[in-house]
Amino acid sequence: MNMFNQVKREIGVNFNEAKNAEIRFWAPEADRVDIQTAQKLLPLEKKDLGYWELQSDALQPGSTYNFLLNGETLIPDPASLRQPEGVHGVSEAVDLKAFVWTDQAWKNPALGSYVLYELHAGTFSPEGTFEGVIGKLDYLLDLGITAIELMPVAQFPGERNWGYDGVFPFAVQNSYGGAAGLQKLVNACHEKGLAVVLDVVYNHMGPEGNYFGQAGPYFTEKYHTPWGSAINFDDAWSDGVRRYFIENVLMWFRDFHLDALRLDAVHAIKDLGVKHVLQEISQEVDLLMEATRRNYYLIAECDLNDNKYINPLTQHGYGMDAQWIDEFHHALRVTAGEPTTGYYSDFTGIKHLEKAYRDGYIYDGIYSPHRLKTFGGKAEGNTGSQFVVFSQNHDQVGNRMLGERSSELLSYEMQKLMAGAVLCSPFLPMLFMGEEWGETHPFLFFTSHGDPELVKAVREGRKAEFAAFHAEGEAPDPQSEDTFNRSRLQWDLLEEEGHQQLLSFYKTMIGLRKQYGPLNNTERSQLTVSADAATNCLVLKRWEDGVQVLCLMNFSKKTQDITIPDDKPYWRKILDSADPKWKGPHAAPASIDALQ
Amino acid sequence: MNMFNQVKREIGVNFNEAKNAEIRFWAPEADRVDIQTAQKLLPLEKKDLGYWELQSDALQPGSTYNFLLNGETLIPDPASLRQPEGVHGVSEAVDLKAFVWTDQAWKNPALGSYVLYELHAGTFSPEGTFEGVIGKLDYLLDLGITAIELMPVAQFPGERNWGYDGVFPFAVQNSYGGAAGLQKLVNACHEKGLAVVLDVVYNHMGPEGNYFGQAGPYFTEKYHTPWGSAINFDDAWSDGVRRYFIENVLMWFRDFHLDALRLDAVHAIKDLGVKHVLQEISQEVDLLMEATRRNYYLIAECDLNDNKYINPLTQHGYGMDAQWIDEFHHALRVTAGEPTTGYYSDFTGIKHLEKAYRDGYIYDGIYSPHRLKTFGGKAEGNTGSQFVVFSQNHDQVGNRMLGERSSELLSYEMQKLMAGAVLCSPFLPMLFMGEEWGETHPFLFFTSHGDPELVKAVREGRKAEFAAFHAEGEAPDPQSEDTFNRSRLQWDLLEEEGHQQLLSFYKTMIGLRKQYGPLNNTERSQLTVSADAATNCLVLKRWEDGVQVLCLMNFSKKTQDITIPDDKPYWRKILDSADPKWKGPHAAPASIDALQ
Repeated sequence: MNMFNQVKREIGVNFNEAKNAEIRFWAPEADRVDIQTAQKLLPLEKKDLGYWELQSDALQPGSTYNFLLNGETLIPDPASLRQPEGVHGVSEAVDLKAFVWTDQAWKNPALGSYVLYELHAGTFSPEGTFEGVIGKLDYLLDLGITAIELMPVAQFPGERNWGYDGVFPFAVQNSYGGAAGLQKLVNACHEKGLAVVLDVVYNHMGPEGNYFGQAGPYFTEKYHTPWGSAINFDDAWSDGVRRYFIENVLMWFRDFHLDALRLDAVHAIKDLGVKHVLQEISQEVDLLMEATRRNYYLIAECDLNDNKYINPLTQHGYGMDAQWIDEFHHALRVTAGEPTTGYYSDFTGIKHLEKAYRDGYIYDGIYSPHRLKTFGGKAEGNTGSQFVVFSQNHDQVGNRMLGERSSELLSYEMQKLMAGAVLCSPFLPMLFMGEEWGETHPFLFFTSHGDPELVKAVREGRKAEFAAFHAEGEAPDPQSEDTFNRSRLQWDLLEEEGHQQLLSFYKTMIGLRKQYGPLNNTERSQLTVSADAATNCLVLKRWEDGVQVLCLMNFSKKTQDITIPDDKPYWRKILDSADPKWKGPHAAPASIDALQ
Repeated sequence: MNMFNQVKREIGVNFNEAKNAEIRFWAPEADRVDIQTAQKLLPLEKKDLGYWELQSDALQPGSTYNFLLNGETLIPDPASLRQPEGVHGVSEAVDLKAFVWTDQAWKNPALGSYVLYELHAGTFSPEGTFEGVIGKLDYLLDLGITAIELMPVAQFPGERNWGYDGVFPFAVQNSYGGAAGLQKLVNACHEKGLAVVLDVVYNHMGPEGNYFGQAGPYFTEKYHTPWGSAINFDDAWSDGVRRYFIENVLMWFRDFHLDALRLDAVHAIKDLGVKHVLQEISQEVDLLMEATRRNYYLIAECDLNDNKYINPLTQHGYGMDAQWIDEFHHALRVTAGEPTTGYYSDFTGIKHLEKAYRDGYIYDGIYSPHRLKTFGGKAEGNTGSQFVVFSQNHDQVGNRMLGERSSELLSYEMQKLMAGAVLCSPFLPMLFMGEEWGETHPFLFFTSHGDPELVKAVREGRKAEFAAFHAEGEAPDPQSEDTFNRSRLQWDLLEEEGHQQLLSFYKTMIGLRKQYGPLNNTERSQLTVSADAATNCLVLKRWEDGVQVLCLMNFSKKTQDITIPDDKPYWRKILDSADPKWKGPHAAPASIDALQ
């Protein structure tokens, strides 16, 4: 096992106590490496395993630099902490220890108590910065969520990007506020009692400003990914690449006090070595937790329906604490009327939703017509707190050609029902920014690449992507600033009654989840669920310590009779989304007698 | 879980009790499939999951046929049992149940008692056929080995091939004697008390006569292998491909009574699905064992040093019973003086051999300079009977440019010492045909392809392969008949004294392994080993039930003092390879007093 430094990054530029820069750069195939500062060119010394090192006072926090390879090629630092002029410019030395933390009282809550809120820093607030997010924390607290989840913040080209085109995993996007801005945001969240999750991308690098191939063998041709060559986690020289990403994980927890990382599309992290890099990450995070006496969570986006990813290391698992589960979303949306085109074609509606509540994975070893093969395994032994569910997220909204949110696609009644379906689940619920007030703006795919060829390719790729959806019309231009502006939240909608009412409904639902033990209990064995395809109704019963909660969901467009479990004589209504109180058509009785 | 038919193959042509042919063909992307017999063209009916079926009396055992795809493309049956005219010709229907077995008394022994003998049916006997092997069984019995291991016999192009260019995994090479010939050989082995292992290739198909791509999506572009596109074990339509190979496994055990399969290079079987195809094979073989009440073993060739492959399914393993372990060979040969070029560059000699005896895997989580990465894991919890070791095999000999065996490279003394090192190991020993008499012929790489372009490519590839070995001169032409003939065993060498003596030494060594409990015990905890790099000597102590055996190995070229363990006052010599009795220079004392 490799042991990583739990005190500071083992790559890039760090400052020691004497305020000297400790410079470490990985370039195993270079013959010579120099660091180019504004004033000087200084040679680095070759060490074992492809590392080059120098200790010098020629760099101070705020100094800019590049590395010069073989006396010929000048590139920014792959482990740069700041790119003041963007992805193509110089790197800037940053002292991450300069920030004064005041979150000593913060304690990361149990994962099972997370109510997540996914947000994109650029479009969430009017300012489009971390500072703008800080301005909305009181709103989020009032909403009741317990954790914000930031879409990726690693430096990307330009100022408009979802974040998945990042090319400097250690550098916080300068236009959002950089490293200090993120540290300030996390500190503010912790002071207010909110956890912070960060989305990180370890399965590919963005297409522009990607100087990795020049620095070292970061990529391998062994595997194909949707983004081209795979990141080299198991081929020659992979130790250095693995170390690079492990250092990244440790940095976010140690130097930014993040509470959890959301690892993007881990199914595209290809590693057939004995120890999967996710296992090594998990081991290293365990050691860091011991050292810092804080808890950190690893949440994977994974579409393989393979609980190996979320099983503990002791059970030969990869040790992720939880995973996203898109199938719940797909089943829920089809139940709510989504046309079954594209990847929705595998979903039949409410019987699948029933299975999702019960089994977690829907395709759990059965034949998937969309994939043309038997797919997945059973999620046996995994608790509900290992699955993150949602009725919308950046991908599910933004990957639609027109980026429509539920508010544009579904009735007001259905929006409330979907919120309830997510918030009453035994899984970790996640909202996507603005869904709680029925934001009417879309969330579109947007970029601000600088390379005209790439801009063209992205535009064309975007069009090709919608073939499966048989959508009509033109896809909005990702590169246009208008596309970005149309994706920003409209906070002034909260002055309108319908939107206020929906927000109030979300607050109430979140409050009930927190208030009722059966609803915040993520023990999957304490529920029963049954769905009726004819009426499109579902009955979810949950319990804890003698208290039972019954969730009756009618996804049809008319009144339906529902048979309720007869083991309890009397049920008191605690919430009714169809109540005129919530702008609904009519309320059900305030109580029912099951034995009538 | 899929359940496969334990009575007959679920693909290809089978004959039912009414002697009607049951024809089943997998072509999921075809619009129409017909079977073309010598007399008729008959349409097949499309069934679920890409299968096409027909029951007909138009085919009888011995009838030839092809499949016609979309009314246009005529191809042989990918599940053909016989290719009477070679890989490009028609397929022939065979009734595998026609053979009359007389091996009812046979019982597959425990894997730990296997002493393996790898042979190539084409070059082993003067006849170059299965019948020729039968003629040598008494010789093999007398030698003392307990299992023969046949190099692959699936139909390959021409009559000369190692077998790894096979393109009809279900058809037994016609020039060796076909299916009936193999059944007869296995039956004869069982009657004489020998087990039979067959080498099967599930990681690629040969380059000539490969009609799979026309039949269906047998290949995927998801992964690269040394042979091009990988076999499709986890991509769209992979169910049919997995089933094809599982049916192949079941056929060998059920219809040919094989005792074990040796699965070629399983590290090149790429499968990132939830259930690895090796796990599914293992499950299916377990079910077949229950049904037939016979034992079958799965032995993997695997160079990953990952005991996941040989761990049981209950421990999230792939359920292989054992694996080949090349590292033992490499360490042994370097200890014996092999130059450390190419893949030998990772091996330092006797300290690695010591580690191999103790730990199984040498690169078990440490940095491999040859691979430029940290490699492997520990073989904790695995018994010695899970590892097959050898001082020579078809690959290690034949992948040398000039195919030299140990007899051409090493002294007579060293040959005996290497035999002892293998046969005294706690692992399963394997000999390569002829090594026991010091065969002087090489074992060269040979082919008899029919495609001139391919012949050229193979010649050139062969030359390129030896760049790493810095060998001088030209590689023998694989396509030349002379290359094949030069690779045949020379049984008349056994009339010469030196060869007879070596054979006698091997017999004695095998006999001792069987006679002494400590030597045939594959419990790895019952040994100690220590090596001294200065003298190039190794002391291996093994024990069982109060009996101890001490193996003193001197790999240097001179007399050495060896310190022996002092926990036993008196040791009696049971074999001395340097004794003049074995043409050695001088004998050690018949007994030693350790407390002197």
